[in-house]
Amino acid sequence: MSVTLLALFKRPEGGDEALATFLSRYHAEHLPLIEQVPGLRSMSVDRVANAVTPSELCLVNHMVFDDRAAVDAALASDQMRAAGRNLREIAPGLLTLLVLEREPA
Amino acid sequence: MSVTLLALFKRPEGGDEALATFLSRYHAEHLPLIEQVPGLRSMSVDRVANAVTPSELCLVNHMVFDDRAAVDAALASDQMRAAGRNLREIAPGLLTLLVLEREPA
Repeated sequence: MSVTLLALFKRPEGGDEALATFLSRYHAEHLPLIEQVPGLRSMSVDRVANAVTPSELCLVNHMVFDDRAAVDAALASDQMRAAGRNLREIAPGLLTLLVLEREPA
Repeated sequence: MSVTLLALFKRPEGGDEALATFLSRYHAEHLPLIEQVPGLRSMSVDRVANAVTPSELCLVNHMVFDDRAAVDAALASDQMRAAGRNLREIAPGLLTLLVLEREPA
């Protein structure tokens, strides 16, 4: 059963201009780093189009791996560390990162 | 392009016993209500196995619809209202509900 690393990003302070800068750098700088993480099977990036309940979140990334061991190896990899350094520059304090495991149906 | 309704649940107060009660009622009472929501194409429920960054979240549900109009109709449906009433009973104040739209690759 695949395991997902779910990244939730809060909207940066500074209004629409700060959001546009974050999104631009996220795509131009961060995603190319994530694509190099070993064991990553697929990735999908979604915008929060609407918050039905109040929420500060603006962006979500699903990163899918074969299993929990692959996620743990990815989190410990040099490539993920590089991606983390980039995030601390472009989105300090905005990230929540979770390991999701599918519940039995 | 499909559109996802993402439900994020915080861990209830009251420790492991409260969490077990919430999870049990979520599966037994809530999911059968969600399954009746019109336009729902698929659903997947994940547990937060590990929070890499600090987080209060414990459970995530992805509900997939054909498009934004289908999500809006679902949110306005009697079936979703019934599901919402159930959640206010079994998980008051724990839900963040977001409409996610895929970013261009």
